[in-house]
Amino acid sequence: MTCSDVQLTRDPFERIFHPENIVIFGVSTKWNMFGSGILNSLLAIGYPGGIYLINPKGGQYQGMTIYRDLNEVPAAVDFAIIAVPAGAVAQTLEQCRLKGVAGAEVLSSGFSEMGTEEGEALEREVQEIAARGIRVIGPNCFGIYCPESGLTLMPGPDLSRESGPVGFISQSGGMSVDFAHIGTWMGIRFSKIISFGNGADLREIELLDYFRQDEQTRIISLYVEGVKDARGFLAALARAARVKPVIVNKGGLSEAGKRAVASHTASLGGSRIIWESALRQAGAIQVGDIWELAQCCLAFSLLPVRPYHGVAVAGPGGAFGVSACDEAERFGLELPRLEREISDRILDVLPRPGSSAINPIDAANPFVTPQAYKEVLLQAAQDPRVDIQVLISLLHHFKALAIGFGSEMKDVVTYPELARVAGEVREQTGKPIVLVLPNYKQGEESLDIEAAIRDARSVFLEHGVPVFSDLDEALRAVSHVSRYALWRDRS
Amino acid sequence: MTCSDVQLTRDPFERIFHPENIVIFGVSTKWNMFGSGILNSLLAIGYPGGIYLINPKGGQYQGMTIYRDLNEVPAAVDFAIIAVPAGAVAQTLEQCRLKGVAGAEVLSSGFSEMGTEEGEALEREVQEIAARGIRVIGPNCFGIYCPESGLTLMPGPDLSRESGPVGFISQSGGMSVDFAHIGTWMGIRFSKIISFGNGADLREIELLDYFRQDEQTRIISLYVEGVKDARGFLAALARAARVKPVIVNKGGLSEAGKRAVASHTASLGGSRIIWESALRQAGAIQVGDIWELAQCCLAFSLLPVRPYHGVAVAGPGGAFGVSACDEAERFGLELPRLEREISDRILDVLPRPGSSAINPIDAANPFVTPQAYKEVLLQAAQDPRVDIQVLISLLHHFKALAIGFGSEMKDVVTYPELARVAGEVREQTGKPIVLVLPNYKQGEESLDIEAAIRDARSVFLEHGVPVFSDLDEALRAVSHVSRYALWRDRS
Repeated sequence: MTCSDVQLTRDPFERIFHPENIVIFGVSTKWNMFGSGILNSLLAIGYPGGIYLINPKGGQYQGMTIYRDLNEVPAAVDFAIIAVPAGAVAQTLEQCRLKGVAGAEVLSSGFSEMGTEEGEALEREVQEIAARGIRVIGPNCFGIYCPESGLTLMPGPDLSRESGPVGFISQSGGMSVDFAHIGTWMGIRFSKIISFGNGADLREIELLDYFRQDEQTRIISLYVEGVKDARGFLAALARAARVKPVIVNKGGLSEAGKRAVASHTASLGGSRIIWESALRQAGAIQVGDIWELAQCCLAFSLLPVRPYHGVAVAGPGGAFGVSACDEAERFGLELPRLEREISDRILDVLPRPGSSAINPIDAANPFVTPQAYKEVLLQAAQDPRVDIQVLISLLHHFKALAIGFGSEMKDVVTYPELARVAGEVREQTGKPIVLVLPNYKQGEESLDIEAAIRDARSVFLEHGVPVFSDLDEALRAVSHVSRYALWRDRS
Repeated sequence: MTCSDVQLTRDPFERIFHPENIVIFGVSTKWNMFGSGILNSLLAIGYPGGIYLINPKGGQYQGMTIYRDLNEVPAAVDFAIIAVPAGAVAQTLEQCRLKGVAGAEVLSSGFSEMGTEEGEALEREVQEIAARGIRVIGPNCFGIYCPESGLTLMPGPDLSRESGPVGFISQSGGMSVDFAHIGTWMGIRFSKIISFGNGADLREIELLDYFRQDEQTRIISLYVEGVKDARGFLAALARAARVKPVIVNKGGLSEAGKRAVASHTASLGGSRIIWESALRQAGAIQVGDIWELAQCCLAFSLLPVRPYHGVAVAGPGGAFGVSACDEAERFGLELPRLEREISDRILDVLPRPGSSAINPIDAANPFVTPQAYKEVLLQAAQDPRVDIQVLISLLHHFKALAIGFGSEMKDVVTYPELARVAGEVREQTGKPIVLVLPNYKQGEESLDIEAAIRDARSVFLEHGVPVFSDLDEALRAVSHVSRYALWRDRS
């Protein structure tokens, strides 16, 4: 069996996401943002397969041969990346189809998003060729990120090669790359990200069906602006939501938003209320922006999917506790009053006076030791009405402590120990723990506090503890997981 | 006229906020968090008046004499700071009253917030003494921050000495110090912050009336959990709101929140819906948390108080534009479609294809020059339906650019010029400009991006341009200013 025969027996999606050889159209000896951009990104991320460059003018680019024609390429090609001017896209795509290329991402813009007849016509040509047997992502997109195979988004040289459970489908290229970055430091790992732009061929419905069946994707997330077939989309959402959580950020819900959608990705928005209720009925989890999307994916990545109702919240100070109660109520959670004996045992290990242990648990000062917190968390978990615990840590106080001792933050912080303790308590009690690390000191002189917070985030993530910047974000993310679990169990 | 005679002729509030001499009760040769904490904070911030320490045991603390009794202090005292155990507070306060001290802040806890009869009784004693002629802040509080006179909160050694227009009244000590920190790097400057804790004597109503009349306070902000006299409080709010904006963060609106309020500052919460409508009727601006409180104060500090309806939004990328429209609608703002000739002139200075100038203005790439943005902003301001402009800058792209050029971020960023331009356009057009600086790259390897963002924030603030981290925060803050202006003009 020749290489080419093997290729033909592979599933087209498999060949697209895990290509052995790719071609890039549009890299030239002259500087070209998209063509060179994607090549440099693939080289930087370390795509291990064959990369072949094509430009009718030929020549060399960074020591690589530029072939004049696809027929000159000495290998069977699975996947094409097209970054030529809009007017040349159709003929390029047709060449690929004739050579048996499984799919192509078209990074070029200048299609239906222009709102011109010419743009519409060019996009219809792309569609017609796709219908004859080559799958197309785009045009007007940033392409595919697949950490396992080493494919990356056009502006994605520095994305992680670690795979994970989150799949992301994005109509917007900017959102795809922003979410890849945000997700990475927040602790999310991706199976695949697909930026589909105008979606001339592959778009929301088929990609949802693909992710539903994709074993590496445990959590599906989407950014959609407008959908071509709303009924079909909602049905695909419902099919997927029965199998795994589907988190949707729907843009373009306002009047002006619809207008912006039209010029951004050439599709239709829609009424806020209709969308909200339709998404809820389909079992999808609706989020308001990229930050909530990421926080929600993080929660689904690290928390068991089950109903959470009672939350114990512990941290230094009283005002956070009041706001914890207010926010919990907003998100359908509750801070149960801890049983008297449990409160008493918690108070035994906290500083007096000033502490309070009814729930929220006010530890009164920011330097309570990890061992004391271990006792607090173990005790609070004893209350049968506590389903999950939230711990708040204010690292900037450790800077003040370090200054007092004439030392540096790294010498006085206790979070590595606290992270270990949190992981232990979760294992011991079966009740998850979530950390909140707010940063109130973001002045130019306080970069060391930011550095400590980022390090602490990594350390807690290593122990499987999700970290949020604010209490309301943490509670909202927990409530999403809980509501999905309730919906799934009911339906 | 002797010094003491002068003191007696000064207004008690004036003596409290601008004391010539203060005494601290509760500093001892042994370590004591509150007593030493407040002393060190006052020394660090550079309070210029006389500081006298008192402890019956006498001795020395850091080279300063500890007097055994107030009568030994060789000066007339305006203000006392009391950090002795709860049981000794009343007699200390009585001594102060007898010596003609105008007011005292009681940092000690162990009063009504304990929920015990003993605590209640101790607090009543404090109240009775106050009623006989000494004003009391606290107990269970962090005291007063007055940058002009050099008074600072108990944990406030590093607060700014710059005064500004924002007054803050906080029932919670934690909130008072957190808000002081957040406000400072965000660009807010304070006239005074008063943390009143249990509010045995001075509390929300009288402090509101004080701030209403205080010429240095142009914007009043409050964090209240529960109020003792709701009707009186709402009347005081309404009195103040007619004169200057009053921004209220009301904690304890949920069932559990009320319970937390009781153990935190010994007062009563209340129903969410009742409070929301009552605050609206009083003309107060209600905010949901400390971040919104700060963003709102920033907007009132730097934007002219007038109605804003039409917003022009410019930045790189299309997805932000869609969300801009959606968020604007949520907050009662609008992105008017720019007049055709204006759009055309804007498109002339932006990269093609990819840009769009209907509003939102999608500049397509992050490296559009400040001079091009100047033209964009000048043109957009020509549209009579544009009342205010929002500019979005994505600094992390400049890191990629710097890497490409083999240089550092500081050599390629253009924000100092962009800030100058924004200030110029605002002056020229009379329409304010707001900057949004999101940070999508918060990984441990990206501290340089955070540093650039913080520096950029300072630079824009120097040009009078408020900076927000997210578009929805910016639009929400603008809408608060606009709604207040509309309310004030109507009433």
